[in-house]
This record gives sequence, C-alpha cells and structure tokens, in this order.
Amino acid sequence: MNISALLTSAGINIAVCVVLLFLYSILRKQPSNFSLYFGRKLAKVNPTRDHHVRLQRFVPSPSWIVKAWEISEAEILATAGVDAVVFLRIVVFSLRIFAVAAFVGIFLVLPVNYYGQEIHHHKHIPRESLEVFSIGNVKQGSKWFWAHCLALYITSLTACLLLYFEYKSIAAMRLEHIRTSPPNPGHFSVLVRAIPWKPDESYSDTVKKFFTKYHGSSYLGHQMVYHRGTIQKLMAETEKVCKMLRSNNVGHGKNMVQSALPAGPSGTLRILSSEPESIKRKPPFPDVRTASSVKEVAAAFVFFKTRYAADVAAKVLLSANPMSWVTNYAPEPHDVYWRNLSIRYRLLWLRKIASLVAVIVFMFLFLIPVTFVQGLTQLDQLHHTFPFLRGLFKKKYMSQLVTGYLPSVILLLFLYAVPPTMMLLAVIEGCISRTGKKKSACRKVLYFLIWNVFFVNVLSGSVISQIDALSSLKEMPTQLARAIPTQATFFMTYVLTSGWASLSSELMQPMLLIWNVFRRGVLRQKDDLCAVSFPYHTEVPKLLLFGFIGFTFSVLAPLILPLLLVYFFLGYLVYRNQILNVYITKYESGGQLWPTVHNTTVFSLVFMQIISLFVFGLKQSKTAWVFMIPLVIFTLLFNEYCRQRFHPIFKNTPAELLIEMDQEDEKSEKIEAFHQNLELAYCQITLKSPDPQKSADLSHPIPSDKDLEDSTASNPPALAQQNPTEN
Amino acid sequence: MNISALLTSAGINIAVCVVLLFLYSILRKQPSNFSLYFGRKLAKVNPTRDHHVRLQRFVPSPSWIVKAWEISEAEILATAGVDAVVFLRIVVFSLRIFAVAAFVGIFLVLPVNYYGQEIHHHKHIPRESLEVFSIGNVKQGSKWFWAHCLALYITSLTACLLLYFEYKSIAAMRLEHIRTSPPNPGHFSVLVRAIPWKPDESYSDTVKKFFTKYHGSSYLGHQMVYHRGTIQKLMAETEKVCKMLRSNNVGHGKNMVQSALPAGPSGTLRILSSEPESIKRKPPFPDVRTASSVKEVAAAFVFFKTRYAADVAAKVLLSANPMSWVTNYAPEPHDVYWRNLSIRYRLLWLRKIASLVAVIVFMFLFLIPVTFVQGLTQLDQLHHTFPFLRGLFKKKYMSQLVTGYLPSVILLLFLYAVPPTMMLLAVIEGCISRTGKKKSACRKVLYFLIWNVFFVNVLSGSVISQIDALSSLKEMPTQLARAIPTQATFFMTYVLTSGWASLSSELMQPMLLIWNVFRRGVLRQKDDLCAVSFPYHTEVPKLLLFGFIGFTFSVLAPLILPLLLVYFFLGYLVYRNQILNVYITKYESGGQLWPTVHNTTVFSLVFMQIISLFVFGLKQSKTAWVFMIPLVIFTLLFNEYCRQRFHPIFKNTPAELLIEMDQEDEKSEKIEAFHQNLELAYCQITLKSPDPQKSADLSHPIPSDKDLEDSTASNPPALAQQNPTEN
Repeated sequence: MNISALLTSAGINIAVCVVLLFLYSILRKQPSNFSLYFGRKLAKVNPTRDHHVRLQRFVPSPSWIVKAWEISEAEILATAGVDAVVFLRIVVFSLRIFAVAAFVGIFLVLPVNYYGQEIHHHKHIPRESLEVFSIGNVKQGSKWFWAHCLALYITSLTACLLLYFEYKSIAAMRLEHIRTSPPNPGHFSVLVRAIPWKPDESYSDTVKKFFTKYHGSSYLGHQMVYHRGTIQKLMAETEKVCKMLRSNNVGHGKNMVQSALPAGPSGTLRILSSEPESIKRKPPFPDVRTASSVKEVAAAFVFFKTRYAADVAAKVLLSANPMSWVTNYAPEPHDVYWRNLSIRYRLLWLRKIASLVAVIVFMFLFLIPVTFVQGLTQLDQLHHTFPFLRGLFKKKYMSQLVTGYLPSVILLLFLYAVPPTMMLLAVIEGCISRTGKKKSACRKVLYFLIWNVFFVNVLSGSVISQIDALSSLKEMPTQLARAIPTQATFFMTYVLTSGWASLSSELMQPMLLIWNVFRRGVLRQKDDLCAVSFPYHTEVPKLLLFGFIGFTFSVLAPLILPLLLVYFFLGYLVYRNQILNVYITKYESGGQLWPTVHNTTVFSLVFMQIISLFVFGLKQSKTAWVFMIPLVIFTLLFNEYCRQRFHPIFKNTPAELLIEMDQEDEKSEKIEAFHQNLELAYCQITLKSPDPQKSADLSHPIPSDKDLEDSTASNPPALAQQNPTEN
Repeated sequence: MNISALLTSAGINIAVCVVLLFLYSILRKQPSNFSLYFGRKLAKVNPTRDHHVRLQRFVPSPSWIVKAWEISEAEILATAGVDAVVFLRIVVFSLRIFAVAAFVGIFLVLPVNYYGQEIHHHKHIPRESLEVFSIGNVKQGSKWFWAHCLALYITSLTACLLLYFEYKSIAAMRLEHIRTSPPNPGHFSVLVRAIPWKPDESYSDTVKKFFTKYHGSSYLGHQMVYHRGTIQKLMAETEKVCKMLRSNNVGHGKNMVQSALPAGPSGTLRILSSEPESIKRKPPFPDVRTASSVKEVAAAFVFFKTRYAADVAAKVLLSANPMSWVTNYAPEPHDVYWRNLSIRYRLLWLRKIASLVAVIVFMFLFLIPVTFVQGLTQLDQLHHTFPFLRGLFKKKYMSQLVTGYLPSVILLLFLYAVPPTMMLLAVIEGCISRTGKKKSACRKVLYFLIWNVFFVNVLSGSVISQIDALSSLKEMPTQLARAIPTQATFFMTYVLTSGWASLSSELMQPMLLIWNVFRRGVLRQKDDLCAVSFPYHTEVPKLLLFGFIGFTFSVLAPLILPLLLVYFFLGYLVYRNQILNVYITKYESGGQLWPTVHNTTVFSLVFMQIISLFVFGLKQSKTAWVFMIPLVIFTLLFNEYCRQRFHPIFKNTPAELLIEMDQEDEKSEKIEAFHQNLELAYCQITLKSPDPQKSADLSHPIPSDKDLEDSTASNPPALAQQNPTEN
C-alpha cells in the first residue's frame, strides 16, 4: 500500500463522515427523531413540538458542534455525572498524549525513518510505499536509533505525568462527588447474601436477630429480596384486581385505581396483599412481606443509621463461616440488578469461573472470522482461493479498496456481536449492579479487542501458525517485533474505517434511526423511544484499543498518529454531544472506570517499550536496547505507585469522609425522615415508566412529598400492563 | 544405580541415624547440655542440677521416643500453642496421605511397572536397576496405564478429602484459640503507620486529634513508636544514672536503683526523663514522651475500647489519602519487630519489590552450586573434567558413594545458607512482626527449594541448556515428563541423605552442641544458652518439599514412598520431642501457616497430575490422558472452594466472634484494669532477660500485681548493661 492508497481510503472515509455529519445535523432537527437524538433533554422537559415544515429544518448547520465544544466540564459534571466526565477525560488524555507523540513522531522520528536508507532509492512521495515511513526503513545498526529512543522517552514520561495528574484529579472528583451528593440510600445500606437458613424462622427474622444481636447500635432495618417468579405472579394478581376494580367502578374508577395502586416514590409500585379490604385503606403501603405467597431469597438489603456503620459492615468479615453472611456495598437503588440477587451465593464462584472460561473460548472461536479478514489483506492468497475474482482485481482501484477498506469493514461487522455477548457473560458472572455489569463487560470487551483485533491480526496467517507462534515464549517477542511494523498499514486503515466511521455511526445511531422510521411508518406507534444510559462497555474499550494501537505504532510508524488525532478530536465533539443530548444518567459508579483505563494505558506503554526494545534488537542497535530497560522499569514502578496511592479510593470509601458526612447529618434533622424512607428506596418492583418525566425522577431516590403527589397523579392506570420487572 | 546401590546408601544413612539417636539419648542426660535440649523446660523451672557422674547418664535409652509418642495433641496445644499443633498436622497429614499412596503404589503400580516389559529381561532383584520399577519400564501404548490412572485418582481424592478436613479443623482451632485466649493487647490495638506530619504539632498530638475526632467513641489511647537510635541513647543515659547512683549510695544502693529502674511488667523497663528529681518520685512510670531528646517515628499503636473497634479500624480505609493513616492488625506485643516500624511507609512498596527481585536473583545465582552437584551424578562428565580422579572411581564402592551420596551432601551444605538469606530479605521487605517475618521467609525458602532442588535438578545439564528449556513453553512439560522419571534415583538418595540426616541433626543440634562445648570449655561461660522459638521458616519448607517430591513420584517411581514414610514417621517423633523440650513459644500467629501448606499441597497434586498426563502422552496412552483432565479440573475447583470457604478466616477475625468476646468482657469488671495496662504492653524497650523465668513471663503480656512485684524483686541491677533492644 502506498501513500495514494492511504489517501484514497482516507478520502472515502472523510467523505462518508462529512455526509453523515451533515445528515445528522438535518435529522436532529426533525421532530420525529427528537426521542432519538435528545433522549436526555426529553427526559427533563416535554418539548412543545413544532411539526410545521420549515426550510431551516433541511439546512445542515454546525451548531451542535459549537454547543458541544463550548460547554464546560463543570456543566457536564452537573448534568451527566462523574462517569461521563471520566469518560470524556479518556478522550482528552488521549488527545493530549497523542498530540505530543504526533509532534515528536512527525518532526523527529519520521525524517529519520524516511532518510534511513540511501536517498536515491526514494520515489515521488505520493507513490512512496507506507513502509518507507516506518522503522523498517532504517538501516541495521544505524546510529540514528537515539531519535526513536528519545521519542519513546518523551512519549512515556509525558504519558506518566498526564496519567498521574488525571488519576489524582479523578480521585479528588470522586471524593468530592461522594461528599457533596445528597444522602444516598446506597451509602446507608449493605447487601447481605448467603443468609443461613434456619428451619424454624424466616430469612427476615434471621437477619433481624443477627443484626440486632451483633450490630444493634447501628442497625436500622432491612428489606428482603424476593424471588422473581413470585414477584411477577403478584404483579399479575394486582393487575387482575385493578381490572376488576376498573370494570366495577367505571364512573369514578380512575380515583379508585389510583388509591389501589399507590405508585410509590420514584416510579415504584408497592404490592398490596390480595384481600380487597386492604384496597380501601389509604397509602400506609402494605408490605410485600404480608403476602403469604411471596418467597424470600437468602439475600437482603440491611440499613444502618450511619454511612460509616454501613461501610464497616460491608468491609468486615461478619461470620465465622466466610460463606455465610457475605456483605457487599449496596448499589444505588436504580443500579441494583435484581435478577442476579437470587443466585445462590455458593454457586457464585462457579459462575465466575464458568464465565471466565466462556470468555476465553469465545475469544478463540472468534479467530475464525479474523483469519478470514486477514486473508483479504493478502491479495495473492485471495486470488488463489477465488480465481474468478482475478478479473475484478485487475482494476487497481478495486484492489486498493479490497486490501485497504474491506477487511476493516468486515471485522467491524463481526465486532458488533461482541459487546452483547460479553454483557451476557457479565450477567452469568452474577454482577449485582448495572454499573458492575457494565464494568465487567467493559473489561471483557477490552481484553477481547486487544487480543482479537491487535494480536491475532499481527500474528497473521492461519490459525495453526498463530498457535505455533504462541508456543514459543522465546520467539514470541521477536516475532511480534518483526510482524508489528509491517502491519502498520492495516491499522491505519482500521483507524480510518472502524474509528472515524464508528464515531459518525455513534452520532447518527443508524440502527435506531431505521427502527424509529419503521415504527412510526409501519407500526404506527407514536410514543417515544426510551432513553438509554451511556454504553460504557462498548465505547471505553474502543477508545482504549485506539490508544493501544497509537502507542504501539508511535515510533514504529508515526504516520498513524495524525489519523488518531483526528479520531480523538472528532470523538471529543461527538461524545460530548451524545452525553449532553442523548444518554440519560440513571446510576453512577463514581468514576470506577478510571483504574481500568489507567492500567490499560500503562500496559500499552510497557508494550510499546518492549516491542521497540525488540525492534532495536532486531536492528542490532545495542545502545538503544540498553537505554530502554530503565524506561520499562520506571513505567512499571510508576504504575505500582499509582496503584498504592489511588486505587484504594476507588475500591473503598474513606472512613474520614463518611464520618464527616455522618457528623454533619447529625446536626440536621432531615436524616430522621430519610431513615424512615430507606426501606422504600430498595423496592424490588419497579415499573418501566413510559413517561420520560419518570426516568428523570429515578435519579432522585429520596422522594419528597411533592414527588410522591406528582407520580401518583401522572401514573396512568395502564402502567400495570407494562413488563413488571426490569431486566 | 541399582537396588544394591540404593541399599548401600540407605544402609549408610540408617547407621548414621541410629548412631546419632543413640548419641542424642546420652547427650541429653548431660547437665551441661540441658540448656540445649530442654530450653522450654528450663524456661519454666530452674532444675536442680545433678552434677554427679552416674552410669545411667551414659546408657542410651529410648525414653524420649516414648514420651514424644505418648503426649496428646491437647497437651501440645496447651503448652506450645496453635502454631506448633499446625506444624505437627503437616507431618500427620503427610504420614496419612503417603501411607495411602505407598499402599496403592506398592501393590498396584509397582507390579505393573516391573512387569511392563517382557519377563525374560529381568535380572536378579538386587542387581535390578531402579529404573525397572519406574513408569519408564512400561511399554509404549500399554493397556495397563489404567492402573496408574486409578492410583492417581485414589491419591488425589484422598489428599483432597484429608486437606479439606485438616483445613476445617485448623480453622476451627484458630477460632477456638482466639475465643478462649485471655484478653490479648493485640486484639485491642491497631498499628497505624504513615501518620501525616504537621509542622505545628507532634505526631502524638496528630494521632490523638485524628482518633478523637473520627473514632472518639472507641479510642482509648496510643503509644508512639520511637527511633531506635534515640532509644539506645536513652538506655545508655539511664545506665549512666544507674552507675552514678550505685557509686554514690553503695550501702543502700540496691533499693535506690530498683526504684530508679522500675522494671515494668513483663520484663520491660520504662525510661526516666534524665532529671535526677524524677528519680525520687515513685513508680507513676514517667513517660518516654516527656524526655525531650526522644524522636518519634510516624507510627503508633492505637488502642481501642473493644476488639471489634480495633478490628474495624484495621480493615477500613481511614483517610482519603491511602498512603497516610495506614492501619494493620497490631502484632502481639512480643511479636512486634520494632526495627521495621521506623521504615517510612512510602518506601515500603519499593522495599517489597526490591526484596522480590533479590529473591529471584538469588534463586538464579544459586544455579552455580546446583550445576556442580548435578555434574557429580554424571560420572562420565566428572572423569572428563578431572582425569586424575579416574583411578579413584575404579573402585565400584567409591563410584556408588560419589554418585549416590556426595551430591546430596554438597547440596545440603549449600542449602544451609538459604534460610538466613531469606530471613534477611524478609526483614528488608519490612515485615512488622516476627511471625510475619517467619511466614514471609518460609514462603521464600519454599519457592527456592522447589525451584532449586527440584526443577533445576530435573532440567539437568548445564545452566545454558536449562535456560533453553525454559524458553520453549510448548516443550517444557514434555521435557519435564521425559526428565522427571529418570531423576527418581537422585531424589531417593536426597530423601535418604537430606531427609533422614536433617532430622537427626535437628534433634542433635550439632552446631549448637559444638558451640556449647567451646563456650564452656574455652570461654568458660557458665550461663545457659537462650531458648529460641521454633524455626518454622526452615522446617515447614523442608516438609513441603518432601511432600512435593513424594507426590510427583508417587506413580512414576513408587519406590520412593516407603523412604518418605520413614522420613515422616521419624519427623513425627523428632518434632514432637523438639516442640515439647527445646523451643519456647513467645508469640503466636494462630495457625496462619496452614494456607501456605494447603496451597503448596494442591500445587503438588496438580503438578503430579499434569506431569503424569504428559508422561501418559509420551507413552501414547490416549485414554489415560483423557481420564486425567477431569481430575486436574476437579483439584483446581476444590482449591478454589477451600480458598473461598476457609482462607478469609486466616486473614481476618470474624466480627461475630469479636463482638461476642466484647459482650462478655462488658459483663466482667477486669476489662477496666486491662484497658489501663494496654499502653504498657507495647513498650518499645524490652530487655533480654538472662533469667529464663523472664522469658516464660513474656508470654503473659497482661501483668498481674504479683507479676509486677516478682519482676521488680528479681531484676538484678546489672540488667541495664544488657543489649537494650532486641533485634
């Protein structure tokens, strides 16, 4: 592949991108797409929709870019939460470090690579093969390797510096977020699992006895977890009662039903025991426990008087049998993944192992499509396999398209299947919260991408030769060092296609767009699409993969860096726009993404250094080799320091902070009321509210009286017909 | 090597052992050796020594064997503590599992191996090469491999079953030990390190403020840690004052000095501020803090009102900066390794990494003597290197001696240097307790032994060929599978020499014996040797290494198993005798050894299975290969289950237990007095008491009034001339 082929590929992608961005700027103005492109805003206010056709609606405009550019981080923090800011920090960090790397690469490394061989070999630049710009062009044992070495030092040290300050500021942001957030039920609660079964009493009584005996001074109450099946049955019964009431009292039915269905705070619905008498009573929210048919699970949310007491209960080994009375920090109420709470704790470790095995198997099964893609970049092989294609490839343009563009597109399509699979595996693993599920899926997708997109593509050829390559520990780095520089072309086109195109597709949401058109056009549904929360598990691994590719090639083939810079810049605008307009924030992990990001970046750095080290070795530059070893050691020590200094903050909440918050609470009187509402916060039966107003309310788990009235007033009776449990 | 050579070797060793045991039974009756062989008993009572020469004293007798055999586990638990019982459990476990393995090996595997080739090849049994009894003798693709497979199943499943019950009973023993022990200062205390420095106040004030603010309800007080240098200086000053007093008041000096040196409870000595006025005041134990010259370290022992509060403070992340206010469970007062408390916490992670690197470097440097030893077993090579030896080796007896006996002896001598080195590295690592130091050294020695004694010997030949072997991951197991069965002979002689001989040397303590004779004969010192605590860090790895060798060869060359059984049986008697008579128990880890033992045993089991699997592969027995995989998976799952079920008990103390103990304490009134004495328990200045009475007293950290009087009365004024700080 030469420069002109790269430019062809870049040209196609830029054209596609620009067209898509224009299209987006028109589509977003169409009222029918509001629910698609303004999920967050719709969740807050019901916009007055202007269905009149105006010319303005069909003129592309860059206004969204200006808006996305101008908004400050503080505003994003206020509207979208810590996780969104942390996500954007990944983009900003990448922009910064690759700006430095690109500067060093273009002005220091690129000339050295280009003039690495005798000048008279060079062709006219557009005809020049891309390999001329990579480290492969430098002569064996050249004295110019100090330039690469210097570039590596600059990149690594800048990256470490930036990483340190990012980690520091994100840790501070996390603590500040905890400090300034209003009393959060999650902070006062602990999820207890593996409650031991006693034949003569219910789980609920066991919990009560245990915590009254051992933690009496701080124990407040608890809320059992119930079997999903039972809950669904109860919901159905309630629904039946509702229908009966509705048919009996058609006249003043609406009020009756509302009192029968006292839609609780934050869109939750409390279940009535099925006796009709209780319906006549007013809200004292008949408890789920009173219904005899409800089956308890050996898990409960236990509430404490102070945050510190809850934190302690979550950290300490409660029982002499470590397999019973197992505690975890309770997720926020909307973050709880109820389905997994009924898993028996004794099976959890088996599930974890099973899902790990499944991830590994899936990663290796995926070799099949990847091998096919790899075949496409080697045209000769393709000619051999499909002789009838030979005529087609005689046109130079076609061959460029197939080698430069098609492999990445096919790989991209296959990769679409990965995040849902990993999400499924995270569910099987038994994550108890939605953020935990996403975090687990995020890591799995990341390993998957780095393995399948990077390593497998690099260790190219057939499946069998790859396994051979793995079997020899000694030859592995040398083989990688030989293979990686030659694969620079593939990854450049990968950045162009997968990177740029995926950003425009993220902006456009083509699948949802088509579905929306289909729904409105064919199914004639008028209600809006549900706003979803940000898909961290797909977007974070993507960014980190591009970072990994960028670091790896930063000195080997620095031409990739400008392409990456464009990617990250576009990403900066697109993700800001999406976070502001599209995705809603139902729950928060408080920046727990960052340790993964940090570790992956350090891994990328060390990988870059080690690969460069072996490339220097292949090129017989002993001095450069020797200079690299201290850098590798420094990077590893830096990582260890950061792990000691910052990581505990992301695993635990400092007692200092919690105690200070508790001490402030003691002064105020609101906490009493809050304590009384704790049990209501963790109610298992939540309804998917079709009204976006409700989704927004979900983020205020502590209901004020006003909220309560609002939701009772606006909940249509048809609610109970919705799918009763979120999954 | 053939059977007769093995018998020669065994004969030499049995003779040596018997002679040593006889010698021991005589030497132990000599009064001059009492301090050597009855350290524990001497620590309790001052025996009336009978210096009259009687004939009885020179008649060997097996009475010690009877005593060691008869004593019950409950008695050992009462006298020597949990750690000693756990140690003996390793021996008992090994005896049990190798009895089963030996039974299966001799009656099932050995015949299959022996008749693996055609009968007419066999020689007369004593002339038979040892390899005829190993799996190497079985034909390729033989159908008899089911016997080996069955043997592996029986051994593995029995081992898992025994391991499970051992883990369960030791966990219960640990909890029972905690439950029944008298109030222990360690349970009420937390070691706080990395106290942040504030320019306007002392560390002590910072600690007080911090804990009063955040843990006011349970905070009781604290005791700062001081610089070692300062402490030594203070001791010297005190000594000077003592001398001055002694010279001034020769008449009634003794009483004066005693009031000036109020030897505190449990043999500790409080320091006086150096003004002579304070000397006239009576005991209110002037605090170390009052002396202006004392320099505080950023570490302190903080005391809490209840065990639970201390446990919580040790587990929770106290501060928003994880590198300050770092807490650990406080070791028992006599377990504290004071020297390491003054290490700056920020350097600790670097020290840990440095000691890890040092261990790895040491392990590879050790290859040099091991390679030399390996050379000795290959006589041809030796002939080549030292041609002048050829004459010597013409005698068959000599050649048998050199190949069968000498290599192990040389290796053994080199191995003597390992435990002290690893102990030093454990100190550099920054362990805060003596038990922690021993535990860390124990693990290091274990890795070292398994690597250097086993793997390096197996992957024989020169250093370079070993590194080559390591470089190929794929060939590694095959190479091991090929090498291990051929090395059975070496390990049989290793068990004979290193195993049996090391036990008799443990019993005899030859080095100490010679030193004792030298001291009494040449230096004319009359006082007794100090009793030491059990060297777990040398003995546990030895036992585990023999277990590892036993498992590995249990089906490959089952002839090794009877030799091991003899070793473990002898070990059972010797270690019981030593624990009862020689070593004293100053401090306890509460059985924290066992998880290491468990993990190593599971590693041995899995290693045995995998090596057998590859041996079956080499022998082209596909069915046996397939049968082994479920067993490996089962063993790994079993280990994971045990880790989940039991390991947390060894890392934390269950809150349930602590709270129950606290609740019982509340009822009694003694706890008030105990609280008042807490600060005194952690006094940095301890004196090595020359009186064994004192060493025994050290194990009662909470002094009664009587103790106090006793120690004041019996402390001679010369005390202060002793080395003031233990190291």
